[in-house]
Amino acid sequence: MKIVFNKSNLIKSVNIVLKAIPSRTTMPILECILIDATTNIIEFTANDMELGIKTQVEGEIIEKGKIAIDAKIFSEIVRKLPDNEITIESDSNFVTTITCEKAKFSISAKSGEDFSYLPYIEKEKSISVSQFALKEIIRQTIFSIADNENNKIMTGELFEISDGELKVVALDGHRISIRKIELKGFSDDIKVIVPGKTLNEISRILSDDNENFVNIFFTNNHILFEFDNTTVVSRLIEGEYFKVNQMISNTYETKVTINKREFLNSIDRSTLLIKEGDKKPIIINIVDGSLELKINSALGSMNEDIDIDKEGKDIMIGFNPRFLIDALRVIDDENVTLYLVNSKFPCIIKDENEKYIYLILPVNFVAG
Amino acid sequence: MKIVFNKSNLIKSVNIVLKAIPSRTTMPILECILIDATTNIIEFTANDMELGIKTQVEGEIIEKGKIAIDAKIFSEIVRKLPDNEITIESDSNFVTTITCEKAKFSISAKSGEDFSYLPYIEKEKSISVSQFALKEIIRQTIFSIADNENNKIMTGELFEISDGELKVVALDGHRISIRKIELKGFSDDIKVIVPGKTLNEISRILSDDNENFVNIFFTNNHILFEFDNTTVVSRLIEGEYFKVNQMISNTYETKVTINKREFLNSIDRSTLLIKEGDKKPIIINIVDGSLELKINSALGSMNEDIDIDKEGKDIMIGFNPRFLIDALRVIDDENVTLYLVNSKFPCIIKDENEKYIYLILPVNFVAG
Repeated sequence: MKIVFNKSNLIKSVNIVLKAIPSRTTMPILECILIDATTNIIEFTANDMELGIKTQVEGEIIEKGKIAIDAKIFSEIVRKLPDNEITIESDSNFVTTITCEKAKFSISAKSGEDFSYLPYIEKEKSISVSQFALKEIIRQTIFSIADNENNKIMTGELFEISDGELKVVALDGHRISIRKIELKGFSDDIKVIVPGKTLNEISRILSDDNENFVNIFFTNNHILFEFDNTTVVSRLIEGEYFKVNQMISNTYETKVTINKREFLNSIDRSTLLIKEGDKKPIIINIVDGSLELKINSALGSMNEDIDIDKEGKDIMIGFNPRFLIDALRVIDDENVTLYLVNSKFPCIIKDENEKYIYLILPVNFVAG
Repeated sequence: MKIVFNKSNLIKSVNIVLKAIPSRTTMPILECILIDATTNIIEFTANDMELGIKTQVEGEIIEKGKIAIDAKIFSEIVRKLPDNEITIESDSNFVTTITCEKAKFSISAKSGEDFSYLPYIEKEKSISVSQFALKEIIRQTIFSIADNENNKIMTGELFEISDGELKVVALDGHRISIRKIELKGFSDDIKVIVPGKTLNEISRILSDDNENFVNIFFTNNHILFEFDNTTVVSRLIEGEYFKVNQMISNTYETKVTINKREFLNSIDRSTLLIKEGDKKPIIINIVDGSLELKINSALGSMNEDIDIDKEGKDIMIGFNPRFLIDALRVIDDENVTLYLVNSKFPCIIKDENEKYIYLILPVNFVAG
């Protein structure tokens, strides 16, 4: 095999497939990128068996062939080569030389015979969204998936399509994050759970471009993303997702509208007084026209008043500040509205059209 | 005590004295910043008993007094406050409130009675250099001090003043780095060993300004730096420094001039094939007109030719690539000149005027 690339194309493509290289594995073949130039196009593939990525690479095939090459060392070499033409050539023993100007690396590769290609996906049910919209909806929800595997379903996000709308839900037992986007054209009803890891990795490949689209295909076991020259295939998480609609009530006793930036900055300041691992809540005291935020810890105390618009009852309620911060950070509105019932009931932050809904459970606190 | 600052002044001063706050200590008072507003000026001091920093802070004293306040929490609070006037007020129990707009923090401080002020330094022997020059000379040598305490003297740098020249030397048993700068005006002959930690911390406070000067004062046990509104005092390391002049020979068998960037990039690339903790050398083979750099490791092999100007014998020699990289990175010249004797003798990289001298010991290698 002998192929010639220019460095920038090569790096771009290597960086894309790197996202499907597992950080630890007992199977060395999974740590490899398959470079397939057996036809007239060059394709790079990486596949950790849960998540697989294939991308087409611009380059000149001088001699057809394929190899599987260790992803880590290959990507590091490519990155450090001069900014010029890079030639990759392998002999019959798969010893591969990577040449650029006067620099010449030689490393052992594999035949690629035992490499697992991406599974075949029936392209029936699909939607299309802009790369930017998909990237945003992931960023705005992914922080509230659970990071431990005790409940597998919580480590993924619900992708639910109905009535021409994509609803994405993430929850971890303390909070729920929901975002919706409208879809164009007809789409089937779909309800799948996509692994959080897949969503994290894909959002690192997606561009910020609102004009470039991703086609997303669904089967019973897989989700497939197609965009630019890249295909990403991921297994789905099996099981029934939580009945989220039942958890979100529309009744409230107190409704508060507050400047998002002031609220966020104030909560952010309060976290200074919480030592790592400490579960100290912040206490929010809402009266007419004013929200007082306060915290008392071994390190000291803080309090701050913020002007608000308020309807309904006064309320005092405690929260883990982290959860409020996570939600407020991904809301772009200047003002946010909080809906509260009492100090034991979840707080809901949502916009009028419910394009976003963030539910956060309160925590007990000692008034003082 | 009651003082009003604007945020940017306050942060700047806190960041300066923070450099003398130890990361770990069993004495809580050392973790404090002393805020002294007992006179008409405000001074912040921190002192870990080896290194002490005092800086004058702009602000309005409304009520005189002093406190010692935990540096970590104080600096974090100040950083997160709105960008506005900050008021610090302490009561008779040293409970200190920090107020900015509507945010109010309250933390316990100490009286500052048991705080160690900086030692008194007799200002007799001194030199003056620009902040930029001092910062540069530290950056260009500090990487070759030893990082373990087995040989205390190696953890510091020699500051030697004679004949109107400041010579700074750092060495760690594998290499020696020497830089010289000319001094203006008369100066006494001085020879002291300054702790590497002091130099690292001070170079973080110094500005990049060539017009701003530092006055450096020397006593038998201390070095004092005076610049802007700040005073830094450090203990010196006791003992006799190594006789460096005897280690640097002026004879050579091979003299090579090479483009610095090409040489550095090539060595940098070769390090990809060295696993962490591995002591694999790179091999440099010098013949007329060409320097070949090669490495063979379990990960693969690399070789690269670089055009050179050469005088004298051919030579093949092995190096720890790290040491070459460290030296080449801090040399600003387009071309560098290497002086070599044989594969057992150190390589010297120096300019014609010996404003810099970098000596690097070779390592054994298996030719092949």
